[in-house]
Amino acid sequence: MYELYYWPAIQGRGEFVRLSLEEAAAPYADVARGERGVDKMMAFMNRDGVGTPPFAPPFLKYGRLLIAQTANILLYLGARHGLAPKSEAGRLWTHQLQLTLMDLVAEAHDTHHPVGVDLYYEQQKHEAARRAESFRKARIPRFLGWFESVLVRNPKGPGHLVGGRVTYADLSLFQAVAGLKYAFPRATARALRKTPHVAALHAAVAARPRIKAYLDSERRLPFNESGIFRHYPELDG
Amino acid sequence: MYELYYWPAIQGRGEFVRLSLEEAAAPYADVARGERGVDKMMAFMNRDGVGTPPFAPPFLKYGRLLIAQTANILLYLGARHGLAPKSEAGRLWTHQLQLTLMDLVAEAHDTHHPVGVDLYYEQQKHEAARRAESFRKARIPRFLGWFESVLVRNPKGPGHLVGGRVTYADLSLFQAVAGLKYAFPRATARALRKTPHVAALHAAVAARPRIKAYLDSERRLPFNESGIFRHYPELDG
Repeated sequence: MYELYYWPAIQGRGEFVRLSLEEAAAPYADVARGERGVDKMMAFMNRDGVGTPPFAPPFLKYGRLLIAQTANILLYLGARHGLAPKSEAGRLWTHQLQLTLMDLVAEAHDTHHPVGVDLYYEQQKHEAARRAESFRKARIPRFLGWFESVLVRNPKGPGHLVGGRVTYADLSLFQAVAGLKYAFPRATARALRKTPHVAALHAAVAARPRIKAYLDSERRLPFNESGIFRHYPELDG
Repeated sequence: MYELYYWPAIQGRGEFVRLSLEEAAAPYADVARGERGVDKMMAFMNRDGVGTPPFAPPFLKYGRLLIAQTANILLYLGARHGLAPKSEAGRLWTHQLQLTLMDLVAEAHDTHHPVGVDLYYEQQKHEAARRAESFRKARIPRFLGWFESVLVRNPKGPGHLVGGRVTYADLSLFQAVAGLKYAFPRATARALRKTPHVAALHAAVAARPRIKAYLDSERRLPFNESGIFRHYPELDG
């Protein structure tokens, strides 16, 4: 059984891992959501005996293997559970898509924390307003436009980012779009009108039976204003 | 022969790829530094016929393979040139270190561009001053302290991040420290006094014969204020 460690009160970066585990129907424990879970998580980050300590959650434990960095975890899970192509070129391309999504996630986070993660949003609202404007006007269209072009160019059709089957990149694009729709509903709706295949992929992933069951379950936390994607109306323009 | 594509006037993220190519003594063309090089680079990003278009430079072309995202390129090169362990656990751990370095690089960039990449530094100096303070005081010590702990815990000794041989993670840590020393000389000197193994690794990589030859060559551009690591004295506290 996999052990996933991530902050228990938010979707955050851990959600990208959860979606792949759920689609794979892979048994996992969401450790930090259990009793004394955060203590157990922090122990891995502070314990002297840990040879490969994570810099930050999420991390995944499986037997003796301890893997951190969201995209790295998905690289591992994708190969094990058929959520990535078997060929080297296909694996690298899927990973490249994921890494680009992680860049988008980091930029989305920084809209409400442009000055620093050691300060609250309320301490950087002025800077956040400027950063969010740039994110809405320049970055959301650029990122979603790029993913649209990837879908259009897929020789197996625009239903998936890579080849003709679902990969972790599809699941992650769903999550990124879900987060953007929550945090920036107006700006994201505008961008999605110009990226219909991205919008269709988001809907198709949400309708996949295992993903739908997960999204309808209590395991799926709602988005909130402690997470990466936060809805502050003043930042949506 | 590898073809590397990256902005020709800065070290930037391309430098992490160059260092691994140089250490591997792998023949490569730095395409965008040649005649009409930027046009050639942009063609890959805009051309309809490119099946796997990069979102941004750097990217590497080798035969029919086109790989973007710095850490992804190094994942590929590391396996081909003995710059990463052969075991799955070792490969994932090395990649995890690289991805953490890329997070540090992104944060270093955002010290001078906290509001957005579509604006100049001069349009966000106020925000930059606040972000840089947080980066100097909280993030540089946190990142370098974590890499110090990784070196101390390495069962093969603190001379390398992974095992007993050089990996691309060592080369990349060298580059990150070099950039921090350039951009934030005072804050970085303070942090390095508390992370002596990181400082020693930086010096040891710089002294490796192929790396030294590269650093002494014209292929190594100087740091400058168009790159990721920029020295603005007012941001060094």
